[in-house]
Amino acid sequence: FNIVVLPGDGVGPEVIAAAQGVLNTVGDFYGHRFTFEEHLIGGAAIDATGDPLPPETTAACLASHGVLLGAVGGPKWDGGPRRPEEGLLGIRKAMGLFANLRPLQVSPVLAHRSPLKKEIVEGVDLIVFRELTGGVYFGEKTRTADRATDLCEYTVGEIERVTRAAFRTALNRRGKVTSVDKANVMETSRLWREVVTRIHAEEFPQVQLEHALVDSMAMHLIRRPRDYDVILTENMFGDILSDEISVLGGSIGLLPSASLGSSGPGLFEPIHGSAPDIAGQDLANPVGAILSAALMLRHGLGLEDEASSIEAAVAAVLAAGAVTADLGGALGTRAAGAAIIDAIR
Amino acid sequence: FNIVVLPGDGVGPEVIAAAQGVLNTVGDFYGHRFTFEEHLIGGAAIDATGDPLPPETTAACLASHGVLLGAVGGPKWDGGPRRPEEGLLGIRKAMGLFANLRPLQVSPVLAHRSPLKKEIVEGVDLIVFRELTGGVYFGEKTRTADRATDLCEYTVGEIERVTRAAFRTALNRRGKVTSVDKANVMETSRLWREVVTRIHAEEFPQVQLEHALVDSMAMHLIRRPRDYDVILTENMFGDILSDEISVLGGSIGLLPSASLGSSGPGLFEPIHGSAPDIAGQDLANPVGAILSAALMLRHGLGLEDEASSIEAAVAAVLAAGAVTADLGGALGTRAAGAAIIDAIR
Ligand SMILES: CC(C)[C@H](C(=O)O)[C@@H](O)C(=O)O
Ligand SMILES: CC(C)[C@H](C(=O)O)[C@@H](O)C(=O)O
Repeated sequence: FNIVVLPGDGVGPEVIAAAQGVLNTVGDFYGHRFTFEEHLIGGAAIDATGDPLPPETTAACLASHGVLLGAVGGPKWDGGPRRPEEGLLGIRKAMGLFANLRPLQVSPVLAHRSPLKKEIVEGVDLIVFRELTGGVYFGEKTRTADRATDLCEYTVGEIERVTRAAFRTALNRRGKVTSVDKANVMETSRLWREVVTRIHAEEFPQVQLEHALVDSMAMHLIRRPRDYDVILTENMFGDILSDEISVLGGSIGLLPSASLGSSGPGLFEPIHGSAPDIAGQDLANPVGAILSAALMLRHGLGLEDEASSIEAAVAAVLAAGAVTADLGGALGTRAAGAAIIDAIR
Repeated sequence: FNIVVLPGDGVGPEVIAAAQGVLNTVGDFYGHRFTFEEHLIGGAAIDATGDPLPPETTAACLASHGVLLGAVGGPKWDGGPRRPEEGLLGIRKAMGLFANLRPLQVSPVLAHRSPLKKEIVEGVDLIVFRELTGGVYFGEKTRTADRATDLCEYTVGEIERVTRAAFRTALNRRGKVTSVDKANVMETSRLWREVVTRIHAEEFPQVQLEHALVDSMAMHLIRRPRDYDVILTENMFGDILSDEISVLGGSIGLLPSASLGSSGPGLFEPIHGSAPDIAGQDLANPVGAILSAALMLRHGLGLEDEASSIEAAVAAVLAAGAVTADLGGALGTRAAGAAIIDAIR
């Protein structure tokens, strides 16, 4: 399998190295060979080429079986002519990655580290489907001395494809979809609600569907997160709500994500950022990147057993308390990665 | 003082009645006379006139010393040609209410009812300044069979005036402003950040200013809410974040808001919604509406002592455990209002 790795900025290279180590171990065990081709993105790409997404990076990603990304961005590039984030948004668009999946399970051994009460977060098991190539992220922007605008736009087709992906996933889970919008204010949200309602009625009547407004959802996710199974929402609301709930499990450093298109390779990345304050110090939690590698095996390469073996190893290591500083542990990035490799073996 | 009351929908009339009772008591005690003129808004106005904001309502509000609003909306008007929310958005725009203030203090006696751990929420004391008449709420909307758009727009002047209001308030508090945007994606956010940075440097250098991205702010507000003093943000982000933190104090039913313009009357409303499921049953918590009346006395009518007397009475009643069902108590809306009136006396 030909894997493109995009270490990016900040702690990105460290967590990607840990994930590569885990993939090599799984490959040895199950008899697969992963070849890693490294490319530039984000601030690192700006420094080297002036372009946050060099054309070779895009070409390599499109030709790969899957892309593993670390993180992009950092204050170093603030105010520069190009922004590292352009690289991330550009590769999402170029690869047609319209569905961003963010699963969240609160581990019973870590529930006590949550800012929320244990009885509220214990047993949370949900997945966010965030639309990733539309909305205000990619609409036209204008700027004059006195005024700025951003256009939020959605087509029926853009809403349909991510909606189908969310409903299909719900069929294999607890069978409930919560669609989040701001239909009392936004026209795009009213279209969103119409399309989701129609796809539900026509194609997935056996799934339970509810609609929620983004503001009240921001409350409910803290008061009763266990009530949710699949959460479906547009790009910006998904960005905010999935970061909000990322604290439920004790550390954002634990969480993976998968970004998928209709065919072709997916992109897999931890949801934490580049964390420039701890970069290069062997302090970052590699679990988010390692679980992203597991999602790549499952959703990108169809290797379910291999994915599960990584997830089981991570669970065992967390249960044993072999964790990094963000979880109150003493392990560095490399040692935490090595502990997971040992557990797989 | 000539006060317009807009009871609106759902539990609105019940909580507004409680707030009027409190205002009458304060008036008797301090020697003010409040005359209440009641007008239609929202679903109630649609039912009576077909228009969620009848022209007489707007005229009366503009001619008043202050407006007290209950809540608007409910499933009854879903899918109708006019939406109750149009009334609320319309009156905000017509009165030029560009700054929505949402103070949040977590009462030590109620901290245990928060979904967050006591040690995280105890002592939280912050205020959100949400821009209220710009952004995606009021930009042009389009809709075809296949496509919908919403335009998010901000001018320099719109950002300046709410920014000044937030900085002025910070001077009387702990002297810190956190401005929230999505400057790595949105052009309006980049303008927002520029203007806030300039107003800070030119007019309020003694205040501490930090910028945060809306997604990471959604996390920080749960992990370390005590770190914030004044939070300044645009309309939609303010809607989401202020609802998110509304659960911190144990019940959204406790929270008031003030919406202010540059001159002219303000509008004061609890931040809870119309709660149609419990409407008409004497179950709603009147505290949010009563504290909104206190904000009207302070910010609208310049009656600081009178406002403080209401706030002290509410604190005493909460400490005594005389609370409604949302806080685990046995009191109805009327009895909870009466308890606060007794405490003022
Ligand atoms: C870095 C930024 C552009 C990005 C986004 O907003 O999509 C990030 O927050 C994310 O969620 O992946
Ligand atoms: C009812 C709705 C239009 C309104 C808003 O989004 O502004 C409400 O959520 C609020 O926060 O006052």
